[in-house]
Amino acid sequence: MTPPLLVDALQLSRPERARFLEWRQGGLGCVHVTLSIWENARETIAAIGRWNRMFAAHGDLIAPATDAASIRAVAASGRTAVVFGFQNSAAFEDDIDLVEIFHRLGVRIAQLTYNLQNSAGAGCWEDDSLGLAPFFGRNLVREMNRCGMLIDISHCNPKTGFDALALSEVPIAITHANPSEFAGTGVELARRNKPTALIEAVAQAGGVIGLSMYPKLLPAGTALADFCRMVEWAAERFGIEAVAFGSDFHAGHPQDVVTWWRAGRWARESPLAAPSVLATWPDWFPSPAAFPAVLEGLRQRGFGEDDLARLAGGNWLRLFAATFGPRTGDRAQAGEAP
Amino acid sequence: MTPPLLVDALQLSRPERARFLEWRQGGLGCVHVTLSIWENARETIAAIGRWNRMFAAHGDLIAPATDAASIRAVAASGRTAVVFGFQNSAAFEDDIDLVEIFHRLGVRIAQLTYNLQNSAGAGCWEDDSLGLAPFFGRNLVREMNRCGMLIDISHCNPKTGFDALALSEVPIAITHANPSEFAGTGVELARRNKPTALIEAVAQAGGVIGLSMYPKLLPAGTALADFCRMVEWAAERFGIEAVAFGSDFHAGHPQDVVTWWRAGRWARESPLAAPSVLATWPDWFPSPAAFPAVLEGLRQRGFGEDDLARLAGGNWLRLFAATFGPRTGDRAQAGEAP
Repeated sequence: MTPPLLVDALQLSRPERARFLEWRQGGLGCVHVTLSIWENARETIAAIGRWNRMFAAHGDLIAPATDAASIRAVAASGRTAVVFGFQNSAAFEDDIDLVEIFHRLGVRIAQLTYNLQNSAGAGCWEDDSLGLAPFFGRNLVREMNRCGMLIDISHCNPKTGFDALALSEVPIAITHANPSEFAGTGVELARRNKPTALIEAVAQAGGVIGLSMYPKLLPAGTALADFCRMVEWAAERFGIEAVAFGSDFHAGHPQDVVTWWRAGRWARESPLAAPSVLATWPDWFPSPAAFPAVLEGLRQRGFGEDDLARLAGGNWLRLFAATFGPRTGDRAQAGEAP
Repeated sequence: MTPPLLVDALQLSRPERARFLEWRQGGLGCVHVTLSIWENARETIAAIGRWNRMFAAHGDLIAPATDAASIRAVAASGRTAVVFGFQNSAAFEDDIDLVEIFHRLGVRIAQLTYNLQNSAGAGCWEDDSLGLAPFFGRNLVREMNRCGMLIDISHCNPKTGFDALALSEVPIAITHANPSEFAGTGVELARRNKPTALIEAVAQAGGVIGLSMYPKLLPAGTALADFCRMVEWAAERFGIEAVAFGSDFHAGHPQDVVTWWRAGRWARESPLAAPSVLATWPDWFPSPAAFPAVLEGLRQRGFGEDDLARLAGGNWLRLFAATFGPRTGDRAQAGEAP
């Protein structure tokens, strides 16, 4: 039997061969990687340049992909397809024309905000009175729809997520978060996990949530069996079509990169009380090489092969196929006033 | 009798000799000019480069100034002192370290937002539920305090203005706006004029409002006598120490620059119904060369010479002296979490 095509909808490791080898060990057909958090356009282009060098040097393990067909083709060749994404809209620099530019450079997924308020909306560290920004935020969603870039609300606050969902003409994603009803809200300020009503709304519109093995998004002491219980709970609650993986795995960075994620250049110290150190991953998920054990855990929990294939990658591929292509529509409209 | 040192606390004309000649005709000792609205850091540095070329080529008419003493010295030499400012925090690119960098390059005044929501706060086109952003916005105010950059709230929404005022350790400015109680809120979306309570709070803290001759910030058909009535009303309401000029004068730009101001790169069209054309200035203020007639109008209205000197420039110079210098204080503190 062919194993299901496995997709991890978010990792932000330092790109290097050790990681690509883990991907192959884990049988990953596709990984959505992060190019940009606080990086501006030029810095993000440099990140694409670094990835292009990786594709040249490690073409035995990885290849870029920009649609469901190319993901399938790369995976079928025994390599891992890399899909480019942003965890923030900083790289767009408040310029809707940069959506098309970055789409042409291969970017297919972008989060609207990362933890904080920006010109597009509000992040999950902010309170929930603020949503999608009426001018740039709405134009950004329209332009991402038009160009074929999947909207990700993982680090947005709930209101920004609901607003983006209401405006988007295509389904949207929560690439990496857990349901707060099952897993709690996540550590202190973070509030990264998502309320049931939001996940439900995303799912009903055809979207997908990528469940994460990141310890900070799980109750303390979560074991593989608990994670599998969460997958089952989510599949029952939101539908098997709406649930998948987004590990949030990261490794290989120097410690100060964690401070960069937390504080960007907008503060000199992380505002979190938690020390800025790289996460310790659980023994049942030390790296993405452990994905087969996760699938096996789910199999033992009673998931059939069809459902496993959906969870493993089928759901993401369906969503990617529905959102990565450009939409016919009036170019001017995407930039119009609210 | 020496005429009072005259300061116009905001103009955004295209820099060229014709404008500098008008300044000399108008007897302007100092003009605060706009380097940046939607421009990023690099583009803003280029604007500084263009001004530096202007200083070299037109040193008979203008010279840069970075504190009250150098403003007085330039004005005493029969030239106009140019003070650099931003109308937005875009040029800081969410990087608090850029405050010190731009301060070193001569920037002494910055608005937190221009019309819209950004990562620092909310502009006057947005609704008023949103204020100073708790992370970057607060850090930006602290860092501007530390470096000695005057906080301007002219295009912010009222809540962002109140929040910035409450946090700032030094007085702040409304460099160019009118009191909405006297002049109305300004055209449609704009809501540029300021509520009495906000101007009052700014004034009580030692700040200044620059009243504007810009027709869009005045009732239709405003004549010089009406403008002088507004100055009198404001001086009675907020105190003679808190009132000054900020004309918002602009000329010399191609028409599409107006669309740039209105839409930046975040939209393809201006969201305002009003056509994006350069303003027609009233016959009593066709250019800053008409400042002497404005002062004469105020004199005829009964203002004495001491009060005229305050209105003309004394109040701005007092505020500049209080805010343009760096503050002793812990550098780390300015970047700390809220």
